[in-house]
Amino acid sequence: MFPDDALTDDAFLGGQLHLWQPRTGYRAATDPVLLAACCPAGTSQSVLDLGCGVGAAALCLGVRVPGLVLSGLELQPDYAALALRNAARAGLALKVVEGSILDMPPALRRDFDHVITNPPYRPPVGTPARDAGRNLALREQVTLADWIGLACRRVAQSGWLTMILRADRMGDALAALGPSMGSVSVLPFAPRAGRDAGRVVIRARKGGRGALRLLAPFVLHDGGAHPGDHDHHTPAARAVFRGGAGLDALFN
Amino acid sequence: MFPDDALTDDAFLGGQLHLWQPRTGYRAATDPVLLAACCPAGTSQSVLDLGCGVGAAALCLGVRVPGLVLSGLELQPDYAALALRNAARAGLALKVVEGSILDMPPALRRDFDHVITNPPYRPPVGTPARDAGRNLALREQVTLADWIGLACRRVAQSGWLTMILRADRMGDALAALGPSMGSVSVLPFAPRAGRDAGRVVIRARKGGRGALRLLAPFVLHDGGAHPGDHDHHTPAARAVFRGGAGLDALFN
Repeated sequence: MFPDDALTDDAFLGGQLHLWQPRTGYRAATDPVLLAACCPAGTSQSVLDLGCGVGAAALCLGVRVPGLVLSGLELQPDYAALALRNAARAGLALKVVEGSILDMPPALRRDFDHVITNPPYRPPVGTPARDAGRNLALREQVTLADWIGLACRRVAQSGWLTMILRADRMGDALAALGPSMGSVSVLPFAPRAGRDAGRVVIRARKGGRGALRLLAPFVLHDGGAHPGDHDHHTPAARAVFRGGAGLDALFN
Repeated sequence: MFPDDALTDDAFLGGQLHLWQPRTGYRAATDPVLLAACCPAGTSQSVLDLGCGVGAAALCLGVRVPGLVLSGLELQPDYAALALRNAARAGLALKVVEGSILDMPPALRRDFDHVITNPPYRPPVGTPARDAGRNLALREQVTLADWIGLACRRVAQSGWLTMILRADRMGDALAALGPSMGSVSVLPFAPRAGRDAGRVVIRARKGGRGALRLLAPFVLHDGGAHPGDHDHHTPAARAVFRGGAGLDALFN
């Protein structure tokens, strides 16, 4: 367990959600918020967050969509414990299961209406000093393709996989989806208008038969440079990060 | 050979290029112009257009970049003959070889600095009444993956493959590039701002080691609807279609 003085208390969604996070190691920032915003879950559906960390994506989604049945898989016990603590604080029922995607715990060996994931699209950082062996194992044993393939297996028929990745892994991620997934949409996130995408959200439906779509980019910041710590998010980005808005409409 | 009354005479690049094309069948429009605009060929380099049709892409490129050594492969004799006729009319030396990508003619079994292609990303239309057998063969035997794999084999070390596809084939095309190709860039073309991409140009370098880039979309039309036959191209698109401008700078 992280000692309390190793934690920060961070506000998400304009203060609708507060998360304890380790001061060092993997820290949730914008990726899980964007991931949650893109998941098309509806009330009372089941959602599995693969690699849930401190619970950021699952809890952001739970804040936006009431009545979800939320589960998370997390390899690192310290993070899993924080996810439970953060869920309790938010008043959301998040079932957190500790384990590896390579050996799915029996409690999660079922289908979910939605699988969301922020896969290890670069070597995981975690807490390398203490968990070097575990981090190394993860880096060596779970390729992005394996991760996505295992994620697809947990999606129910007609259910959805929603994932966020660094844009340079888009090709690898699309190739990993496999023939059971269709109706794929790629939503690029650009730091500014006219710039390369930094992230993509990829959504795919099990059994979907629609053609792949490459959507217009969602632009995160106004203006041509990053003016210090001032909030220069575009109005649409601010609605997501501060207002907790969903982005499902972009996919329709 | 097409009889002359089966042909149209079409101006490209604001009249810098005129092409004879069959009135029915596959007709070059904007795709080959965009393909040529994205190819980073420099003076005196060699270029192979795989599936050159009436020569539109190769000749657009030849108009923009002087001194190229241009070759084209075309399966259909009628189109190959028109490509030669169009090249002579443009005063450009385009070597057109008739044959199939599945059985590359010996004259083209060498490396090229640049391979450009507008692959059969949907079943070829051609002249189905007369060429039904050939069209069927092509549709059944040359998958997009095979086409792209064979295109990569013709690219010299440090040379470039540039291809244009319907955006829904982006994932298949990226997966087909294979490990010899890197420094991949995807340039989406959107009919209007905020709309899904309709086409993508994918560029890859043999032996390239750069990460994949997803560029900002290039928007083709202004406004929210297509106002009849009036030219509502964006200024940047007009510079390409009417002025013959290149788009290489977008990739830098």
